[in-house]
Amino acid sequence: MSNQYLDPNLKIFTLNSNKKLAEEIAKVVGVELGKCSVTQFSDGEIQINIEESIRGCDVYVIQSTSFPVNERLMELLIMVDALKRASARTINIVIPYYGYARQDRKARAREPITAKLVANLLETAGATRIITLDLHAPQIQGFFDIPIDHLMGVPILASYFQGKNFTDDIVIVSPDHGGVTRARKLAERLKAPIAIIDKRRPRPNVAEVMNIVGNVEGKIAILIDDIIDTAGTITLAANALVENGAREVYASCTHPVLSGPAIDRINHSVIKELVVTNSICLPEEKRIDKLVELSVAPLLGEAIIRVHEDQSVSPLFDI
Amino acid sequence: MSNQYLDPNLKIFTLNSNKKLAEEIAKVVGVELGKCSVTQFSDGEIQINIEESIRGCDVYVIQSTSFPVNERLMELLIMVDALKRASARTINIVIPYYGYARQDRKARAREPITAKLVANLLETAGATRIITLDLHAPQIQGFFDIPIDHLMGVPILASYFQGKNFTDDIVIVSPDHGGVTRARKLAERLKAPIAIIDKRRPRPNVAEVMNIVGNVEGKIAILIDDIIDTAGTITLAANALVENGAREVYASCTHPVLSGPAIDRINHSVIKELVVTNSICLPEEKRIDKLVELSVAPLLGEAIIRVHEDQSVSPLFDI
Amino acid sequence: MSNQYLDPNLKIFTLNSNKKLAEEIAKVVGVELGKCSVTQFSDGEIQINIEESIRGCDVYVIQSTSFPVNERLMELLIMVDALKRASARTINIVIPYYGYARQDRKARAREPITAKLVANLLETAGATRIITLDLHAPQIQGFFDIPIDHLMGVPILASYFQGKNFTDDIVIVSPDHGGVTRARKLAERLKAPIAIIDKRRPRPNVAEVMNIVGNVEGKIAILIDDIIDTAGTITLAANALVENGAREVYASCTHPVLSGPAIDRINHSVIKELVVTNSICLPEEKRIDKLVELSVAPLLGEAIIRVHEDQSVSPLFDI
Amino acid sequence: MSNQYLDPNLKIFTLNSNKKLAEEIAKVVGVELGKCSVTQFSDGEIQINIEESIRGCDVYVIQSTSFPVNERLMELLIMVDALKRASARTINIVIPYYGYARQDRKARAREPITAKLVANLLETAGATRIITLDLHAPQIQGFFDIPIDHLMGVPILASYFQGKNFTDDIVIVSPDHGGVTRARKLAERLKAPIAIIDKRRPRPNVAEVMNIVGNVEGKIAILIDDIIDTAGTITLAANALVENGAREVYASCTHPVLSGPAIDRINHSVIKELVVTNSICLPEEKRIDKLVELSVAPLLGEAIIRVHEDQSVSPLFDI
Amino acid sequence: MSNQYLDPNLKIFTLNSNKKLAEEIAKVVGVELGKCSVTQFSDGEIQINIEESIRGCDVYVIQSTSFPVNERLMELLIMVDALKRASARTINIVIPYYGYARQDRKARAREPITAKLVANLLETAGATRIITLDLHAPQIQGFFDIPIDHLMGVPILASYFQGKNFTDDIVIVSPDHGGVTRARKLAERLKAPIAIIDKRRPRPNVAEVMNIVGNVEGKIAILIDDIIDTAGTITLAANALVENGAREVYASCTHPVLSGPAIDRINHSVIKELVVTNSICLPEEKRIDKLVELSVAPLLGEAIIRVHEDQSVSPLFDI
Amino acid sequence: MSNQYLDPNLKIFTLNSNKKLAEEIAKVVGVELGKCSVTQFSDGEIQINIEESIRGCDVYVIQSTSFPVNERLMELLIMVDALKRASARTINIVIPYYGYARQDRKARAREPITAKLVANLLETAGATRIITLDLHAPQIQGFFDIPIDHLMGVPILASYFQGKNFTDDIVIVSPDHGGVTRARKLAERLKAPIAIIDKRRPRPNVAEVMNIVGNVEGKIAILIDDIIDTAGTITLAANALVENGAREVYASCTHPVLSGPAIDRINHSVIKELVVTNSICLPEEKRIDKLVELSVAPLLGEAIIRVHEDQSVSPLFDI
Repeated sequence: MSNQYLDPNLKIFTLNSNKKLAEEIAKVVGVELGKCSVTQFSDGEIQINIEESIRGCDVYVIQSTSFPVNERLMELLIMVDALKRASARTINIVIPYYGYARQDRKARAREPITAKLVANLLETAGATRIITLDLHAPQIQGFFDIPIDHLMGVPILASYFQGKNFTDDIVIVSPDHGGVTRARKLAERLKAPIAIIDKRRPRPNVAEVMNIVGNVEGKIAILIDDIIDTAGTITLAANALVENGAREVYASCTHPVLSGPAIDRINHSVIKELVVTNSICLPEEKRIDKLVELSVAPLLGEAIIRVHEDQSVSPLFDI
Repeated sequence: MSNQYLDPNLKIFTLNSNKKLAEEIAKVVGVELGKCSVTQFSDGEIQINIEESIRGCDVYVIQSTSFPVNERLMELLIMVDALKRASARTINIVIPYYGYARQDRKARAREPITAKLVANLLETAGATRIITLDLHAPQIQGFFDIPIDHLMGVPILASYFQGKNFTDDIVIVSPDHGGVTRARKLAERLKAPIAIIDKRRPRPNVAEVMNIVGNVEGKIAILIDDIIDTAGTITLAANALVENGAREVYASCTHPVLSGPAIDRINHSVIKELVVTNSICLPEEKRIDKLVELSVAPLLGEAIIRVHEDQSVSPLFDI
Repeated sequence: MSNQYLDPNLKIFTLNSNKKLAEEIAKVVGVELGKCSVTQFSDGEIQINIEESIRGCDVYVIQSTSFPVNERLMELLIMVDALKRASARTINIVIPYYGYARQDRKARAREPITAKLVANLLETAGATRIITLDLHAPQIQGFFDIPIDHLMGVPILASYFQGKNFTDDIVIVSPDHGGVTRARKLAERLKAPIAIIDKRRPRPNVAEVMNIVGNVEGKIAILIDDIIDTAGTITLAANALVENGAREVYASCTHPVLSGPAIDRINHSVIKELVVTNSICLPEEKRIDKLVELSVAPLLGEAIIRVHEDQSVSPLFDI
Repeated sequence: MSNQYLDPNLKIFTLNSNKKLAEEIAKVVGVELGKCSVTQFSDGEIQINIEESIRGCDVYVIQSTSFPVNERLMELLIMVDALKRASARTINIVIPYYGYARQDRKARAREPITAKLVANLLETAGATRIITLDLHAPQIQGFFDIPIDHLMGVPILASYFQGKNFTDDIVIVSPDHGGVTRARKLAERLKAPIAIIDKRRPRPNVAEVMNIVGNVEGKIAILIDDIIDTAGTITLAANALVENGAREVYASCTHPVLSGPAIDRINHSVIKELVVTNSICLPEEKRIDKLVELSVAPLLGEAIIRVHEDQSVSPLFDI
Repeated sequence: MSNQYLDPNLKIFTLNSNKKLAEEIAKVVGVELGKCSVTQFSDGEIQINIEESIRGCDVYVIQSTSFPVNERLMELLIMVDALKRASARTINIVIPYYGYARQDRKARAREPITAKLVANLLETAGATRIITLDLHAPQIQGFFDIPIDHLMGVPILASYFQGKNFTDDIVIVSPDHGGVTRARKLAERLKAPIAIIDKRRPRPNVAEVMNIVGNVEGKIAILIDDIIDTAGTITLAANALVENGAREVYASCTHPVLSGPAIDRINHSVIKELVVTNSICLPEEKRIDKLVELSVAPLLGEAIIRVHEDQSVSPLFDI
Repeated sequence: MSNQYLDPNLKIFTLNSNKKLAEEIAKVVGVELGKCSVTQFSDGEIQINIEESIRGCDVYVIQSTSFPVNERLMELLIMVDALKRASARTINIVIPYYGYARQDRKARAREPITAKLVANLLETAGATRIITLDLHAPQIQGFFDIPIDHLMGVPILASYFQGKNFTDDIVIVSPDHGGVTRARKLAERLKAPIAIIDKRRPRPNVAEVMNIVGNVEGKIAILIDDIIDTAGTITLAANALVENGAREVYASCTHPVLSGPAIDRINHSVIKELVVTNSICLPEEKRIDKLVELSVAPLLGEAIIRVHEDQSVSPLFDI
């Protein structure tokens, strides 16, 4: 390793969700990943062995709570419990993708607010800080009473599209009503106008229509969302954009959940490229040709160094 | 009082922010307001005297944390402390307007999340339930770990506009990117399309432009927001709508903060009517001719009865 | 339903681990199971819909945290969060099998104490009482600060063996050092002596030997454990008993985890019958001929009634 | 700045109550005040901008919760929330005057204990230490579970009076029953006897009488209290002293609240000098000729240094 | 029992400190004391057996934390733990004498605040309400965040002295600076003036002098304190009163700790009668002729009934 | 002192239970014991004076909660409170013998779990770490949520017996069902087989019989337990061993409670030596000839050094 980080009290561990990303981050920071195994007994219970002393250390645990989310979350909680009992000085959770973030309010009667539950569980287990990326709602920061560093994926996506040097007009499109602010942020960086997909059902018992609010005619449309899950909305939106005259459609998101029919839908859609980050580790079968993966390791690694050295993290918002 | 509520253990108190609304609510429920005085000593400290026993009672305290917000919040916290020490069975806070709701995330480095702080303060003081209306972000529900009943102002506003029986086409307009979901909800009830005001600065050192995404030409435009504060955005938006061909512009919101230049701006704007609720008590000088005030007392009173009787509150969402 | 329980405020819900047992328990109590669905989104996140109002109710949730344990535990935590936010009066968790119970102490450096973590998570989520059965260590009761009713499986197993009316001498055998107290309890009810399997390695690099402490010659041996997981120890113990002259070997436990090679090992072992309870729901392929399943529904149902009616639960210890 | 404090991790911030005192304290310590603005939006909500990184720093926030107390308290709570979320290492609250301290017990039914509420709010927000001065009751220290350094104002007052080198006999007078212990402490330092004003109503419907317990005839009387608020008691006490033969009357206190008619009463009273500290910042119109203001900056500055350097604070009690 | 209390959910238990008082209280309320034994193992550990079900009951535990205070406090904490785990609905601690109350502030460096520690311990164990009598400082109420009913002993003492129908002038005397407010309260009920014992050391290396502030010449002096412990101050005060011309001296207090030389000192003092309550159970050898014991059972019994029936407790302040 | 520990921030204090052991530990570490007095007022209340500044220090408090357990526990809790308020950086409780450890579960209805209560009390008071030795049940580790270092006494006992170089066969005997695992651990170190005393009542109304499971004939038997309290079981066990042919009987335990008739029973028993540690300080009259006391000071001192220097404590398990 060329650059070696000097303070031996900074330790980075990875659990099972993002081993490759964790290795990249460790390289950025200049440390070896801490020795630790996370296995399952044959009855499914998780067994964690931390194989080096971490007494008095500042430990950073890298784990997205992506699929299988409940396994990943329990790994994380058990790891935090182990670190607390093993006398870590601080326990810093790096969650590139925060699962259950969409269950962030009671939309109907008797719903849980699972994103808050997860925050409570992490604090109860003993986490002392959270570092995360593009929360589904920024208000989730307030679900915690420990410090949380909330990093942004938009600059990474913006840099990619800037590198394309599009010669045609572009338009940034929010695939739904809730994501307009995010689209606005990308639009500012790309100096482009915005449009919104206004999905609605004209009358009861009539199919939903993908109405477009804003002008996309003859433009290169870049759809942006924080999460692409089953890809239903985004592919319908892409079709609607083309039907309304868009020249090309790119789709982008920070967190490529890509569950169920997602890959199939994207493959068969008019989307030209799907630009994502490696906040979620994709299995080989989801790494389709259309997919462009950008790494968040430099961002997260730099954040860890800044946190550890008590430097301001805010410059990272302007990469 | 014609309808008298039978259970003497339900007690409703008001503090200083919304006395008139509290009286209306008490009438809806069928009780007299509890006897209580909230005064200030000459050094500004708040003194609360609860003048009847509330041991073992289910107490509902009605208080918006509106201007002057810090006084109103401290009144509320001190009242909750007094009720807790006086052995109330449950302490239910009815906050028609939840102040500081817009400070709900860290948008910049070293910002507080005051909306979460307020939630923590209320829980620490001893509140056991929150009943509130149109939180700036629905995620604020998750700032609490006590039950919270989150009521909606949109149905009340929608009923009013339905009663107008507009013969022209209408369009529901969100004055900014963050409010599109709310506009969509009103639009659904009024079976209308939506538009968005996309305020942006085309180039550095150039004035912001109120761009309109969506079609408003020849339509009656209804602007909707949760809060209208200084009324800068909403009046500029109204102007932009007229410039883009809207026939008439109505503005509406649940919470009429109307601070600073708000009244002046609205008076001089193209806004035809400003439709609000009485979640915030407006002083006489703000009750201008253009203002239409709708009461949330039936909604909140019914919610109190349902909570007290362990009935589901969800039917109130479909008034 | 012949016996219908009168108080509508008692509601029993089941999640996904023990639906059949839950139905039996509901029948014992005399209520219908509460309407509720627990499903997974395609990305693996759990979605819970409670389809009837539970405001002000005393809710009993039946869920073993058995395989897949992390899914089952998250279902439970999310359900508790939903019930808390939906204003349940009390949230009583009925956990026939408490997963992770064997991780109840730090046996080596830097181990978690996952059984305590689980207790903390349940309390944080909002559980107000636990009803459970044969914890791996009775000290786990002390991991909670909410009331916990700890029921015993030994009387159910004892009744079964008493019904056999064995004419030969019997001996109760603990398969390891930690289970001798449990063996003693069964031995008392069956008025039999005990023996212990003393598994140890005579010298380094020599295979472990199943030494028997106590006399089993010519007797019917009944092995008892709280949990049978991979069945390695119990089947080796059974072999050792036969080699030392036991006539017949029965094995019994409260919690049939039966993971990995367990079924195969038992099928090929000298064990004549494996007597278990339905604290864990066994899939069809594990319901082998040797398996005898006894129901804990009468015990748990009676416990729920007693808890709900503020009657002492202690008589249940002497069934 | 001549003396510059070397450790850059010690940062002192002031909010709005005592900016001048804060500057004096910063000078004593040898640092510049941290950059921070505390403003109000036009709707009265407080906005705090901390304009330099405080990650990993030991932050001292100087703020009396004096008039307007609720504004000052909310500024403080919001600042603490911001510091906590911005990863301050410790958050030390320096409260020269602790408002609401007189609401320290339930004197009547259903009263709040606001002084405890304030302590709970500060701990909930995230304060890790309190440094304060002459609490109305020393028991308020026990309202906190975080360390609290409780400094004394009496030595500062005593030094001033010692400097007068009175040639006549002096007597230290407590203006009410609750303050005798404080009078005793000043009396010890000035080697003087004490007297007590025993305000009581001889019979119902008869005016209260300022009876004097102890001998004041021909002496210089020094009245001492912790707080002088409306100055009613102290000025009546001064009159009674003169009527009973005192030659001259001085009044002194640590905390000059001086609300409502206070200044007028003192101006028109027989009090020769009113000796106070700058724990509360007095506006120009209250700085009357009779007023002598002593600075607590050296005391508080020294306390901050000692706390920061883990030296004992107790020597400060013997200045 | 003539008057039998009807609600079987009200249960009163006593531990070892005040069994006789507890029986009196139970009689006032109209219940039998709950069955419970509190013994010590031979190694000194406390064993508690609660011999009747208390599920869902409102339990009142009567225990002064008097000598031996640490035993009595641990009995109480263990009892509360047992009641919590046995599913009591509420756990109400009746502490006629609250030990450690004098350690209520840090008077010197590195002192504990044991009175607050005790409050924290009781809340942690699971107490839900405190009923107590004449706390050494009323601010101790604020050490709790659970409701506390603070009853007064002065009215009981006042009634006794009123019954004497003294024909001579009386004066109420506070034996130290801290107790003047209490003396004032008794003085108001007996319509008498007050005096204060001002114990001080005129010069270093000179004995302390009991100076009297106020006029006692020719009067019947009634000394009042909350606690009489070693009786040093009170007997010296009595002597000083006689030397200054008092005709007779009575001493009174709520809590007769009477430790060490107390009984001897009182026997040999000029004190005519020592009037106390039974908040602390006195052993036979301390029941000297001069001692008059008044019962607090009617007061505490009535308080329990009022608390249980959700009636205001404040009328008890005016007995 | 030959070896002086360099870091002045490490401070060791002792309270009243184990002064001699504390001095030995301090010597091992290389520090002087901190200056502190723990006395009782004449009314039995504990008074603690910490006579040197401990601001910012890592404080280790050595105290077994042995007889008189409630006094010792309250000393410890009050000390922790004082240290917390005096701004100790960390408060590390070294409890060689953890009293109340046998009350670690509800064995019967309405029992407390006092071992958990004690853990809660210590955490509430402010302890930040526990260092202890041979907990009665290792699960008690999970009663804490602060780090706990759990050391083993078996290696110390094993070393002693290894030093005997017995030429006859030995057998390690557990005196009851619950201690078999502990016996197994000693047996492994001494490469010996095990046996178990199976105390049981053959029929109702018949005396209990000390049945021996395993072979002891002609062997040197070493009884091992964690605690020997009244020595009833251990002496009956010793007799039974001799009756069953054991040549000699040694008894050993980590914690010599030795209450009530213990010394008498051991003196009159067939036990040849009673081997214990100094985790509990024995008074002179219990230091009988048969007693061999081994010191845990090297183990605890080394643990303190390792904890303070953030080194792994696990190597201590293999002494």
